[in-house]
Amino acid sequence: MNHLTHHATHTVQFTTRTTSDGVVERDFTLGGVSGVSGVPGVLWSPASGGDRAPLVLMAHGGGTHKKWPAMTGRARLLVTRSGFHVACVDAPGHGDRPRSEHDEREIAELFRAREAGEPEGPVVVRYNAHLAERAVPEYRALLDALQELPEIGTGGPVGFFGLNMGTAIGVPFVAAEPRVTAAVFGLHWPDALAEHARRITIPLAYMLQWDDEHIPRESGLALFDAFGSTEKTLHANSGRHKELPRFESDNAAQFLARHLVRAAAPVA
Amino acid sequence: MNHLTHHATHTVQFTTRTTSDGVVERDFTLGGVSGVSGVPGVLWSPASGGDRAPLVLMAHGGGTHKKWPAMTGRARLLVTRSGFHVACVDAPGHGDRPRSEHDEREIAELFRAREAGEPEGPVVVRYNAHLAERAVPEYRALLDALQELPEIGTGGPVGFFGLNMGTAIGVPFVAAEPRVTAAVFGLHWPDALAEHARRITIPLAYMLQWDDEHIPRESGLALFDAFGSTEKTLHANSGRHKELPRFESDNAAQFLARHLVRAAAPVA
Repeated sequence: MNHLTHHATHTVQFTTRTTSDGVVERDFTLGGVSGVSGVPGVLWSPASGGDRAPLVLMAHGGGTHKKWPAMTGRARLLVTRSGFHVACVDAPGHGDRPRSEHDEREIAELFRAREAGEPEGPVVVRYNAHLAERAVPEYRALLDALQELPEIGTGGPVGFFGLNMGTAIGVPFVAAEPRVTAAVFGLHWPDALAEHARRITIPLAYMLQWDDEHIPRESGLALFDAFGSTEKTLHANSGRHKELPRFESDNAAQFLARHLVRAAAPVA
Repeated sequence: MNHLTHHATHTVQFTTRTTSDGVVERDFTLGGVSGVSGVPGVLWSPASGGDRAPLVLMAHGGGTHKKWPAMTGRARLLVTRSGFHVACVDAPGHGDRPRSEHDEREIAELFRAREAGEPEGPVVVRYNAHLAERAVPEYRALLDALQELPEIGTGGPVGFFGLNMGTAIGVPFVAAEPRVTAAVFGLHWPDALAEHARRITIPLAYMLQWDDEHIPRESGLALFDAFGSTEKTLHANSGRHKELPRFESDNAAQFLARHLVRAAAPVA
């Protein structure tokens, strides 16, 4: 079942394959990341094959995992609407991956802060920055390995879609990764990210909640402002941190279609 | 050709009718507005009839008119995509309407400020507030008259879509008009509008330009913040005042479809 050993340091090894409603879902293990045993991931593709279709990398939020309903819902939307390949891996300490002592300590500290009614921001920002340091090399390896698959290939358009912790991972990843050509971020503090954001110049969509009880409004706007992109769009919705409206998934899918499909097949 | 005289103080009298690409366009004169001779307007409807379909009232921006390309483009989008009726009238002093001495004086002052490199804001805010006072009763009369048409009728969902001066007119109009159930506004200063905005509680979309050279960012955000609506969404795009991306017309059409169609035919 090892589809890829030739010349590739980073490989995905598929373990299961199911098909439903026009979407092929393949679980895989990403290998070859220095210091990390296999990273569990999932690749969603059009049942029709999706030959060299654009690829979207997703990163999930804190405390969830690669097949959280928001992830599978967004993946199905991107596959069925635009024919994209979509991949997500469990972040360090999340999903099917073991927690380190450091993970356990930070999670306990987060629960303690919540219990005590203290702001979550300082713990989340610090812990997410730590997770991003571990996750960015994994996402780079993931992209290497997926581009070795014949149905994806190198040189095609690549999108990124991650909110919350997915943005904490995605911003430094995209800042250092010229292969990503459009990105959807949102719902994060600027503290550890603004410097990376300034180096990002690709088209991007950013989502924030106008009445976020964790992330002050000015902080969310400051991160949007920090991106170096000349083409960027902010969607701010009334409501609290976890109340991002469902229709923003549609908007994100449209945004990615606009940028990745255009890039794949320029109109004369 | 006077379709409506029974019981209606406010009437629309159709003058021309053309059909192209599935859209019927009828020019009309709105009569019966106190102190105003006929107001020229246009009603776009589905060629299929649009029996009792939702109605969207549009207001154009400063210095343009009811058939400005942005107006006809948005109208066609709303008619062909959602089957809505869409109407727009020339604002006082605009399009086919005469300018008063007051109009001439304010327009001269605006050109003078531009020429001198002074900020436009103070003149535009003041003149738009003046125009809104004249236009709001006209929009109320327009809605009265259109709801007398058998193909529109009373009690159905009504949307409003106006940016720039269209927002200066629309915010006080919608604040005082319970028949409007969803609105798209944008690109204006809060000065004369924030008090009205606080009384608006319907779902709304607001658009602003992140690098607007006329409207300071904080001013645009302050107007969005002022709306009393629990369901509101802000789209802020990089770019200058006149660089609102074309795809925001699609977003506005989707927003209106989501709210007006749902209201017209609730899903069980």
